[in-house]
Amino acid sequence: MSLVRVHNFSVSLDGFGTGEGQALETPFGHAGSRLMEWAFETPTFQAMGLHGQTDGSYGVDEAFAGSWATGIGAEIMGRNKFGPQRGPWLDEEWTGWWGPDPVFHTPVVVLTHHPRPTLEMEGGTTFHFVDADPVSALALARDLAGGLDVRIGGGVSTVRQFLQADLIDRMHLVVVPILLGRGERLWDGLEGLDERFSIEATPSPSGVVHLAFDRR
Amino acid sequence: MSLVRVHNFSVSLDGFGTGEGQALETPFGHAGSRLMEWAFETPTFQAMGLHGQTDGSYGVDEAFAGSWATGIGAEIMGRNKFGPQRGPWLDEEWTGWWGPDPVFHTPVVVLTHHPRPTLEMEGGTTFHFVDADPVSALALARDLAGGLDVRIGGGVSTVRQFLQADLIDRMHLVVVPILLGRGERLWDGLEGLDERFSIEATPSPSGVVHLAFDRR
Repeated sequence: MSLVRVHNFSVSLDGFGTGEGQALETPFGHAGSRLMEWAFETPTFQAMGLHGQTDGSYGVDEAFAGSWATGIGAEIMGRNKFGPQRGPWLDEEWTGWWGPDPVFHTPVVVLTHHPRPTLEMEGGTTFHFVDADPVSALALARDLAGGLDVRIGGGVSTVRQFLQADLIDRMHLVVVPILLGRGERLWDGLEGLDERFSIEATPSPSGVVHLAFDRR
Repeated sequence: MSLVRVHNFSVSLDGFGTGEGQALETPFGHAGSRLMEWAFETPTFQAMGLHGQTDGSYGVDEAFAGSWATGIGAEIMGRNKFGPQRGPWLDEEWTGWWGPDPVFHTPVVVLTHHPRPTLEMEGGTTFHFVDADPVSALALARDLAGGLDVRIGGGVSTVRQFLQADLIDRMHLVVVPILLGRGERLWDGLEGLDERFSIEATPSPSGVVHLAFDRR
């Protein structure tokens, strides 16, 4: 059976997965880049070409970051991860934050109440826009994944919905020691979630703490 | 100058320092003992005689737990830590959760809107009940501490108020990997707090993560 996995998902110490005020220039709102800075220097993120160019830095951050694509056959993401627009599409020019050759290289199911035609990008990424609940979206993603695992890519409410529906097998969470104070909380409505997982913590010299959730 | 310190203060992964429904039998409400179980086996907590008797277990949990009293000359606690009553004292029979010889062995300033006479207990603990803001309470505690440090003992709102007033120099926080879902949040109103502290994370085999906050 293919697994459902979450990777490289950062939350602040006060539990926010994104700040307030997402916009084209600020995908994480007032959080800026602070939730993801731990990853910028990793070879995995460097290879995505998103965050300047350095030689990259190996270590525990890379050890976790690097496993995000291994064995993955499809991703599911919420519309808020796909772009900053809300409501009906005003145009269909927007093709995501990731340029003509997105980093995914697999089918990606985008959850939206406003479906639009499938988008075939370079490099094997195909965006499928569907209005579906988590169970149906997962069935579709598993079909598209060809027996491989499915990654739940975010944003915050998408991960939360899949956790609430008890559909996630493994989750790599990164607790970043910042206090955002406002934004979107990951943990709302998840009382007792810990009973369904074993949770292992690993701190990094970068200051973050990696949490590995494994379904019991 | 004496320091203001917090020790052994546990929060759930979703940021709650106590659950819902504090009562005589349930000081942490629906959280039960889960927030403090990491400490029960430490020699420091064993010596308090509160949690059964074992030989105790040394290790990183004890390393942190054991420093709570060193160099401390007084504690400040909120009334919710002192007892489950709210509003005017119906009687003054209640002398805290800790028996005739409380574990503090120093003066303790109890913040309450309903002052009552000072309580001298066995073993050097004296409870002083005052209606004071954090700055005034700290001035009193420093007087009572005779040049030693002052510990902010909790509960949640007391620690939060002292953090908001920027009065805390060192804080030992323990992140317990449970999701309480409801209760009292430590982090409300503390956006940007991390800019005032360096924060070091140390995981424990018990599953918790110790966070050491040091004022920059």
